Amino acid sequence: MLIRNVAVLVVPEVGECRVEEAQDIHIEGDRITTIAPTASAAGDRDGGGGGDGGAGGDRVFDGDVIDGTGLLAVPGLINSHTHSPMVMMRGAAEDLSIEDWFNQRIWPMEVNLTPDRVRVGARLACAEMLLAGVTTFVDHYFHADQIAAAAIESGIRADLAPTFFSSAGQDAIDAAVETTRELNHLHPRVTASLGPHATYTVTDDDLSRTAELARADGMRIHLHAAETDDQTQASLDKHGVTPMQVLERTGVLDAGVLIAHGCGIRASDLPILERYADRVAVASSPKVYLKLAMGEVTPIKGLRSAGVPVGIGTDGAAVHNTLDVWEAIRMVALTQKQREHDAAWMTLSDTLRLATRGSATAAGLGNDVGVLEPGRQADIALVDLSGPHNQPIHDPRAALVYSVRASDVVTVLVAGQVVVRDRQLLTMDRDEVLADARELAHALVDLSTGGAVQHYEP
Amino acid sequence: MLIRNVAVLVVPEVGECRVEEAQDIHIEGDRITTIAPTASAAGDRDGGGGGDGGAGGDRVFDGDVIDGTGLLAVPGLINSHTHSPMVMMRGAAEDLSIEDWFNQRIWPMEVNLTPDRVRVGARLACAEMLLAGVTTFVDHYFHADQIAAAAIESGIRADLAPTFFSSAGQDAIDAAVETTRELNHLHPRVTASLGPHATYTVTDDDLSRTAELARADGMRIHLHAAETDDQTQASLDKHGVTPMQVLERTGVLDAGVLIAHGCGIRASDLPILERYADRVAVASSPKVYLKLAMGEVTPIKGLRSAGVPVGIGTDGAAVHNTLDVWEAIRMVALTQKQREHDAAWMTLSDTLRLATRGSATAAGLGNDVGVLEPGRQADIALVDLSGPHNQPIHDPRAALVYSVRASDVVTVLVAGQVVVRDRQLLTMDRDEVLADARELAHALVDLSTGGAVQHYEP
Repeated sequence: MLIRNVAVLVVPEVGECRVEEAQDIHIEGDRITTIAPTASAAGDRDGGGGGDGGAGGDRVFDGDVIDGTGLLAVPGLINSHTHSPMVMMRGAAEDLSIEDWFNQRIWPMEVNLTPDRVRVGARLACAEMLLAGVTTFVDHYFHADQIAAAAIESGIRADLAPTFFSSAGQDAIDAAVETTRELNHLHPRVTASLGPHATYTVTDDDLSRTAELARADGMRIHLHAAETDDQTQASLDKHGVTPMQVLERTGVLDAGVLIAHGCGIRASDLPILERYADRVAVASSPKVYLKLAMGEVTPIKGLRSAGVPVGIGTDGAAVHNTLDVWEAIRMVALTQKQREHDAAWMTLSDTLRLATRGSATAAGLGNDVGVLEPGRQADIALVDLSGPHNQPIHDPRAALVYSVRASDVVTVLVAGQVVVRDRQLLTMDRDEVLADARELAHALVDLSTGGAVQHYEP
Repeated sequence: MLIRNVAVLVVPEVGECRVEEAQDIHIEGDRITTIAPTASAAGDRDGGGGGDGGAGGDRVFDGDVIDGTGLLAVPGLINSHTHSPMVMMRGAAEDLSIEDWFNQRIWPMEVNLTPDRVRVGARLACAEMLLAGVTTFVDHYFHADQIAAAAIESGIRADLAPTFFSSAGQDAIDAAVETTRELNHLHPRVTASLGPHATYTVTDDDLSRTAELARADGMRIHLHAAETDDQTQASLDKHGVTPMQVLERTGVLDAGVLIAHGCGIRASDLPILERYADRVAVASSPKVYLKLAMGEVTPIKGLRSAGVPVGIGTDGAAVHNTLDVWEAIRMVALTQKQREHDAAWMTLSDTLRLATRGSATAAGLGNDVGVLEPGRQADIALVDLSGPHNQPIHDPRAALVYSVRASDVVTVLVAGQVVVRDRQLLTMDRDEVLADARELAHALVDLSTGGAVQHYEP
């Protein structure tokens, strides 16, 4: 496969991001093989061409060709923390504090979950994400096998953590662990992480056992911790330690973990995290922190100084209302400038680096996705910046961070497979996916069922 | 004209907003005449119908019919503070403090402005806004006659304030005032306000003269004041008064004024503003406050307690990067919850009320636009919420605030004229508008011209 004559976003490990015009991206199987300047003319098989090595494949190419003229190729976006099936609760829990959001709405609603219902939500989520150029999502939810099935069907890539609470009992924990093991051998596009819910819903003993399992089986952990500073303070008040200290003493940091949110990570926690920076990452979802009035955003500047990778995610749509990673990227840039009182911090290049390399590392896929270069997975979104809301373009990086819309995504590839073409989802029947979701919507948010899967009292 | 079988957003003066399904909106000339339940079937001219009075017009209707099935009609959005031609600088001044943004980029670039160039930018801005469902914009810029021409051509509604600085001299001020007078008699869709730039760039004497002119001619004033708390503190340090006190003692509050931003309005200013609450409004553009790390957002809760109307705007795209009022609405809700540490504040209904009634009042058009009801101007956006990113819909108000995209706007009317239909701009040649903007882009941001229109040192 060849994407011909496309501009390419280049995200170096340090320094400025840039856009290289008029490139050909060659793909074999699931990987990028070469990216090189477009030959001067399609029919000019012996002619000049762009020059600097690696090109030429297009001269004898006879596979599928996507015309990239006028489009910008970016690494497929990565949603580094979400609960995809919660799209089913979009708009059903508004204007509520975090306590009421959990205890009055979400956890009572989740009594209604069944495998089939989770599948319906996950299919909708995959459709929404792929159409917006999201090619990988890092999920934390119940019935993760159903989410895997939706991911495989839709063509998206996923890392799935089957959620468990200590309150659900050992059998439930064992089942979640077993699902994690199974998912890790299911499909090339699916990986899995152990999914204790949070430091405040899983006991230290269970966290320790999870860390042991993770080390023994080479699995990663994905959990919520220090979501707010209130949680950090509550942990100090009740146990005399911060959530990060809990993660250290239970061996979770040592095993390797993706920490969701971490808004309550304190300066005193940074030296701890620094010791495990090669296997710990944090995912930030700032729209949620503002909407729930959580009081803080992820301290990315401190984490960066400690060498801890940070990715960008949406969290679930029951609070983020979308799975739009473009929106999450923009919110990271805006809220980080606000937090540090420094408009020159979290630059365009740094923001794009978080969204690509940072999120890939957070997903545990730092060697495979997140950057467009030979040898990497062919996870690519082609973006059309020609609309009035992006024009004129003085800096395409600014367009990607501050003006692009998800609807500007035209074509999407995952692992070399075209999953969206000309804004149409090729892998699933969009109308069927939507009809299933609408049919199920009311049953899923029914609060009359009684009970709750958990109680929020960190 | 008839919009048939459409859901309608109802925004009462107090209480909950709601959506009424299956309505017919009848329009005669530039105004809405009736909104009533859709008759039971198109061909059923004698049949049941929805019932409660005022309907029936559809039974004998033979004008243009827009099928609203599956769409939601909302009051056309109002951008209550912007500098529309600055779309030409989109992405040309990134990652800069407010000082550097003004002094290193924007004010040196504005040396390059000419009437023709302003026209090019304004045409692009009108295209962007109309396609996103924005039917009114409140502008503050140079060469406002050119902006008026673009507004008239595009079909959008505008209130235009010709910008002036005291440093430009009396002739420039006189010319701006004369333009304001002329624009007020130019076209039914155009009004104008006097446009002193700010309390820190216009002398108290010039503000006093502006207030006198405003009172004498029945014109409104639109200016920037207390954009940051630093500005308020600088005003106190230099002059012993806050910017709001300057506006009071110069008579600007008494004359009636739209204050842009007001993030530096202090609690002690609120009793002052309360005295003029029937003729003062504030426009809030929070994306800008975060991006420029201005340290505060508009104190909407305090303003509301003082009875001061608040509208929502984008500010110019040289910092907001879009003229997307949906984005601005969302940012108001998110940042207000954050500011007040209260997730239950700035509810869906209150946010939508600011975006409609609040912005209409801020635009000086509170009796004419902002609400869909008989007698009001037929400024209407039809929104398609059927996409995967909005579904399922448990609450359409939540979709409007937290998940809708500008690209979900399908059809737009201003003053009863269809200006966008099926996402196509009918009033201007989109490709020509874009080509003109691209051709001009580099010349407009050329920093080699030398000089600056002003210096930022509040």
